[in-house]
Amino acid sequence: MAESASRESRREAASSLAERYRWVRQWTEELCAPLSPEDCVIQSMPDASPARWHLAHTTWFFETFICKPFIPDYRPYHELYEYLFNSYYNAVGAQYPRPERGLLSRPTVREVYQYRSYVDHAVLDHIETAAPEQLAAMEGTLVLGFNHEQQHQELILTDLKHMLSHNPLAPVYTLVGASASKSAAPALRWTGVPGGVHSIGFDGGGFHFDCEGPRHRTLLQDAEIASRLVTNGEWLDFMRDGGYARSDLWLSDGWRTVREQGWQAPLYWVERDGAWVQFTLHGMVPIDPAEPVCHVSHYEADAFARWAGARLPTEAEWEVAAAGLPTEGNLAESRAFHPAPAPPANGGMSQAFGDVWEWTQSAYLPYPGFRAEPGAIGEYNGKFMSGQMVLRGGSCVTPASHIRATYRNFFPPSARWQFTGLRLARDA
Amino acid sequence: MAESASRESRREAASSLAERYRWVRQWTEELCAPLSPEDCVIQSMPDASPARWHLAHTTWFFETFICKPFIPDYRPYHELYEYLFNSYYNAVGAQYPRPERGLLSRPTVREVYQYRSYVDHAVLDHIETAAPEQLAAMEGTLVLGFNHEQQHQELILTDLKHMLSHNPLAPVYTLVGASASKSAAPALRWTGVPGGVHSIGFDGGGFHFDCEGPRHRTLLQDAEIASRLVTNGEWLDFMRDGGYARSDLWLSDGWRTVREQGWQAPLYWVERDGAWVQFTLHGMVPIDPAEPVCHVSHYEADAFARWAGARLPTEAEWEVAAAGLPTEGNLAESRAFHPAPAPPANGGMSQAFGDVWEWTQSAYLPYPGFRAEPGAIGEYNGKFMSGQMVLRGGSCVTPASHIRATYRNFFPPSARWQFTGLRLARDA
Amino acid sequence: MAESASRESRREAASSLAERYRWVRQWTEELCAPLSPEDCVIQSMPDASPARWHLAHTTWFFETFICKPFIPDYRPYHELYEYLFNSYYNAVGAQYPRPERGLLSRPTVREVYQYRSYVDHAVLDHIETAAPEQLAAMEGTLVLGFNHEQQHQELILTDLKHMLSHNPLAPVYTLVGASASKSAAPALRWTGVPGGVHSIGFDGGGFHFDCEGPRHRTLLQDAEIASRLVTNGEWLDFMRDGGYARSDLWLSDGWRTVREQGWQAPLYWVERDGAWVQFTLHGMVPIDPAEPVCHVSHYEADAFARWAGARLPTEAEWEVAAAGLPTEGNLAESRAFHPAPAPPANGGMSQAFGDVWEWTQSAYLPYPGFRAEPGAIGEYNGKFMSGQMVLRGGSCVTPASHIRATYRNFFPPSARWQFTGLRLARDA
Amino acid sequence: MAESASRESRREAASSLAERYRWVRQWTEELCAPLSPEDCVIQSMPDASPARWHLAHTTWFFETFICKPFIPDYRPYHELYEYLFNSYYNAVGAQYPRPERGLLSRPTVREVYQYRSYVDHAVLDHIETAAPEQLAAMEGTLVLGFNHEQQHQELILTDLKHMLSHNPLAPVYTLVGASASKSAAPALRWTGVPGGVHSIGFDGGGFHFDCEGPRHRTLLQDAEIASRLVTNGEWLDFMRDGGYARSDLWLSDGWRTVREQGWQAPLYWVERDGAWVQFTLHGMVPIDPAEPVCHVSHYEADAFARWAGARLPTEAEWEVAAAGLPTEGNLAESRAFHPAPAPPANGGMSQAFGDVWEWTQSAYLPYPGFRAEPGAIGEYNGKFMSGQMVLRGGSCVTPASHIRATYRNFFPPSARWQFTGLRLARDA
Repeated sequence: MAESASRESRREAASSLAERYRWVRQWTEELCAPLSPEDCVIQSMPDASPARWHLAHTTWFFETFICKPFIPDYRPYHELYEYLFNSYYNAVGAQYPRPERGLLSRPTVREVYQYRSYVDHAVLDHIETAAPEQLAAMEGTLVLGFNHEQQHQELILTDLKHMLSHNPLAPVYTLVGASASKSAAPALRWTGVPGGVHSIGFDGGGFHFDCEGPRHRTLLQDAEIASRLVTNGEWLDFMRDGGYARSDLWLSDGWRTVREQGWQAPLYWVERDGAWVQFTLHGMVPIDPAEPVCHVSHYEADAFARWAGARLPTEAEWEVAAAGLPTEGNLAESRAFHPAPAPPANGGMSQAFGDVWEWTQSAYLPYPGFRAEPGAIGEYNGKFMSGQMVLRGGSCVTPASHIRATYRNFFPPSARWQFTGLRLARDA
Repeated sequence: MAESASRESRREAASSLAERYRWVRQWTEELCAPLSPEDCVIQSMPDASPARWHLAHTTWFFETFICKPFIPDYRPYHELYEYLFNSYYNAVGAQYPRPERGLLSRPTVREVYQYRSYVDHAVLDHIETAAPEQLAAMEGTLVLGFNHEQQHQELILTDLKHMLSHNPLAPVYTLVGASASKSAAPALRWTGVPGGVHSIGFDGGGFHFDCEGPRHRTLLQDAEIASRLVTNGEWLDFMRDGGYARSDLWLSDGWRTVREQGWQAPLYWVERDGAWVQFTLHGMVPIDPAEPVCHVSHYEADAFARWAGARLPTEAEWEVAAAGLPTEGNLAESRAFHPAPAPPANGGMSQAFGDVWEWTQSAYLPYPGFRAEPGAIGEYNGKFMSGQMVLRGGSCVTPASHIRATYRNFFPPSARWQFTGLRLARDA
Repeated sequence: MAESASRESRREAASSLAERYRWVRQWTEELCAPLSPEDCVIQSMPDASPARWHLAHTTWFFETFICKPFIPDYRPYHELYEYLFNSYYNAVGAQYPRPERGLLSRPTVREVYQYRSYVDHAVLDHIETAAPEQLAAMEGTLVLGFNHEQQHQELILTDLKHMLSHNPLAPVYTLVGASASKSAAPALRWTGVPGGVHSIGFDGGGFHFDCEGPRHRTLLQDAEIASRLVTNGEWLDFMRDGGYARSDLWLSDGWRTVREQGWQAPLYWVERDGAWVQFTLHGMVPIDPAEPVCHVSHYEADAFARWAGARLPTEAEWEVAAAGLPTEGNLAESRAFHPAPAPPANGGMSQAFGDVWEWTQSAYLPYPGFRAEPGAIGEYNGKFMSGQMVLRGGSCVTPASHIRATYRNFFPPSARWQFTGLRLARDA
Repeated sequence: MAESASRESRREAASSLAERYRWVRQWTEELCAPLSPEDCVIQSMPDASPARWHLAHTTWFFETFICKPFIPDYRPYHELYEYLFNSYYNAVGAQYPRPERGLLSRPTVREVYQYRSYVDHAVLDHIETAAPEQLAAMEGTLVLGFNHEQQHQELILTDLKHMLSHNPLAPVYTLVGASASKSAAPALRWTGVPGGVHSIGFDGGGFHFDCEGPRHRTLLQDAEIASRLVTNGEWLDFMRDGGYARSDLWLSDGWRTVREQGWQAPLYWVERDGAWVQFTLHGMVPIDPAEPVCHVSHYEADAFARWAGARLPTEAEWEVAAAGLPTEGNLAESRAFHPAPAPPANGGMSQAFGDVWEWTQSAYLPYPGFRAEPGAIGEYNGKFMSGQMVLRGGSCVTPASHIRATYRNFFPPSARWQFTGLRLARDA
């Protein structure tokens, strides 16, 4: 009887893992469904990758970390794919140069879907037949693979948007989800974040990235955080006030970047006949003053905050403020793929999850006691802890099951092609 | 009766033009038939363009210079295509930046074929219905368009080869035409080119590019020219003798380029297990010593000639030597798309046409009395007369009907991605 | 009587300020005394400035912030010097481009000394004659000017060393101070840094930079810090163990830098006949294993710490550990201008001040409650709080009166031309 | 008696060589006399060298090619100078990188003068004591050394002008020689250059560079050449007519350069309060419409000629037109160091020598039958025969004894820092 129950429980565990596997993998392909083969192979900058590469690399992840170590007699799909689709895991081997991902016309998109199918069959078959201890051994890596693929789902859309934006034809990814808001943004209110010793970092059950821990105590000063995100309307005020032309508002690196890049507005904003429009995944649309500003760099967010007489929150302040909130919002599942105006004020912090990633004033550094895991998996986060700033809260292209209050995203302060915005804070 | 004869003659002229139009346009599409959409949109360097761009640009040429000026009520296919597919004609308008041709996933390849079809119908319909004087007025531009498209047919293959060569999978364009020669190259003999006053440049009937004229007299010293092209075997001797490591053999610019680029062999040559192989449109193949060396720059050709105790011919010497020869050889119609060993010696200059473009020691400069034509068509050649060297004779990817003894091709001395080789000359 | 006492006190204050002014200004010129005019005008990289520029810029500082605002009828020495010798104060006006500081042969070094003399007379004359409230008004800026000039005294030597190091003649700045240690370094011991809430940041009287405050409470975990700096001998072990070739030891940005720059040893180390020597201000000398390693980047320091199974200290840990120590050590006044081996162990943290700046794992960010001052002076520190790492403790080219436990120096993680080294830390 | 006469003749030959040696060497030092040490060590771009380098390199030439091979027991001045001051002679050995010539503060200028003195004594002593056959053996190289040093005398001034021009202080090299012309330029007339077979190239006695020969026959078409140089006034007309904004006037490479570099006027021209002034070796002066335009590139010269409905002369046309003229004009000995207006028309070609080097439409290529000499001396000219255009006639900074009708100078078509202008030609 006990054995049978255990067998049942194993079957359920396997079933659940298989279902999640299918669900994650299918969502990736759904995102790519509207794309032509041509859309899938072009690389618009070294930091962005073609959709075809994301489709293959996420598959490479499962092949490398599940199939090869766990499946007996697994026969790799193609000997060169390990080299072509390894992103940055030095422990696994050499990598095809990142800036040249756009030089590859082969494997074709169709061939990459075949690769996906091959690996999917192998993984699912193994999940369903593996012994309980085998399943247990690979569950952690499987779940990491799900989360890894979700990260690439977000990148598929951000990289695609960047690529399409260069096209004078302004191609439309999807017409669904485009909608003009009618209402104004609610007034900004300030919510207290009490000083004192708080604990931050992940400590619950379930999956989390290594950099989210260890949970530890930290000391905050009294502060306040804005009830909603900064809006396009507020950003237009900043622009009208000469925000991009006043050196006193900017960090030194930021000011140099503004001049070198000629920034005069957020990325994807274009002035046409005296009015601002923006390129979106739904095509060119007018700027809606009620929507959260998006596609601004940390430099811009920092300058805006200084202009507004405020500052960016630290990541600890943000996490303390968001700790009790439900992880709901305008996330990828809403299929809007575009930030939306804040709901009417409810007294607390709204828009914490979804819409836009929120720049903080915290550098991406290890928490006290952090140790990278050994081996290739340990390269996941730790080695990027230099020169980057922490972002919190997820965006309109982040899957809901992927985000949580302790989640630490990170990008260089000059990055603009992610769905990035800001929320203000100030000393109390 | 006279009228009828004239009508008949007009019909024949129209018919002949239409047939040539169809033939040229179809050959372009045949060349692209083996390509996937992915193959057609990737740009591997600023100097090379994706096949999709060539397909569209050659169509843009007919739309711009035939449809718009000559066809009443012609409705342009797409308002933005003029901008997207103009190559360098400043007189026509702004151009989408050349180095960013690889950023465009749209129009898709399918849409570009529809564009081709639309313009083809318009042009052919107009050819067949135009009044004789209309036909006469546009015939020159039509024929220029044929020759223009033939140039791009060659570029489709050279640019494609360059792009595919970056792929570790070494994709095969076509298996047809690949063959290993068994025979050795015939011994090199020297053919006299007598000194004195010769006339060079185009003077016959039929089409020619403006830079081929005016025909004029020039004074040569007594010289000799090699009976065949330099072979891979001879190039391997040069390499073994330290050719790429001896500064005394090189022009100063060439030597700097060798060191900066790390050149150690012709482009597409790769050393594997101690032997040299090369990437071709038929995949990776061993180096055949009997074949003409290909994909060498002017700098390399010049250094080789110095090493060999000889020199490159001037373009006048080459033209005088080739003047009486039939325009036959290993040209695109042979569908080998790869240079072939010289035939047995016949006492004169063999391989003059086809196989590889032959670098000369002449800079690409205007002939005495040359004047560029006014307007956009005048931008075709004259404005490139700076910093480039003349090549003669066509290559294995040049259509036979496109080449002739007076044809002046030109590339910068560092260019290697065309099918370029050399023939030696020396003072008599 | 009271008036007289106050007059006396004013005279003493003036006298003291004048003496410090003379002392600081003279030390700058002493540092430059061994230099030829040629040594003073060459710029070896955009980040480094010629000595002539430092001589002029420090003078510009007093002219701009003391003479012009405080001295009635002050006549600027030269109308263009404000433009030529402004470093980065946007609020003051345009700046001659930093990377082109080495393009200026004029003003000659002699002319710059005349400029110094002119401003010195004006400042000293004003100090001695100013009314008490005038003196009080400008005292803060004067003292900032002293500290500013001390920073440039350090840069004069670091920039000079960088420039001289490019010269195959290996020029010697001074023969004085060069000495080979005979003794080995003392064994490394670990000193506890107790966890809990500590206060860090400046709070005493006297001068400090704005970024050292406000003093605030911070929460530490239990940790340990090394008793001495990492030595050349330990660094050689790291190198022999493949430290520069093992990607697993490096931050991602660090690893890219290692490969791009071809780093194989600290800056200024050269391998000669199988042994390592280093360029110093005393010429080329053998590597002494007992000396602290110097001229390593943050990337290298971080990789070394990982290799050693330790980590870099946070700046808070360092400050807590150094809080009670006297600011003594191998500082500029010892005129060694080169790091020295640690003294025999004394149970605590040695070499805290002097020898080499110590990289921490802390990004250079504002302390809680930090606000930049308004106007040009506010550009001093705050605007650099992005992309840089904190260093602590001063070096062998830092004046003793310039350093203290709360001092926060900062450089980008790739910088190596400062006298930078490291001390290990670990979780307790 | 015969022996005595021969001894006498030897003494005279030696005496004459020694006198020329002294004269050439002294003129170099006279040119540098107004310079501070600071002026002598700064490099303003990779193509230009500091005066200190020219002073040393010309000395290196005599040490390398006279002292070392010809003087028994000659002891080189410094073992590293061969490396530091070799320009580009690969046969002699490695070279200190050209773009880093400005990184060397040592040897100081004073030390380089000592080096000059050391070598001068050795050379002069040897000239005066060498046996006749020794003298004969080294005479050719000595005379090459004189001409080599004269080339560097010109470069000292062009490189210095470029360096000083970056200085907002607009330093004055010399006040002597500056003078404003009052008269207008004479009207442009056309002089016939008859077609037919002409001989060009050097064939007389005396020194010439290898690239000036062999003298050979060439065939010209009937042409006409302008009686004087193009003036600033004519250039202003070109500018007012949009010359720098009309793509149809430019070679493709030229047009790209115009846009990339933002050219709107000749080098050193600056617009001030609506009027054009130019930086000269005498400081900033207004543009004189009567003076020849100077510091224009080949691209600009070519565009101007096209705008004027003319063309540049070929080098053969220029040489035929100049063949009979005396080598007189505004050359370095006039110490004006600035071009002067043409004298009143005299029916022929004026300003052929001096004022400005005249761009031709000829690429710098070998004459028929040219062979570079073996060894290091053979690197003098031949290896630069790629990517450069021929200039003729010398400039206001060329020594009179250095120029002749067959002299072929050469620079890349984008170069502007030499004293370069143009003269028009046209088909007859």
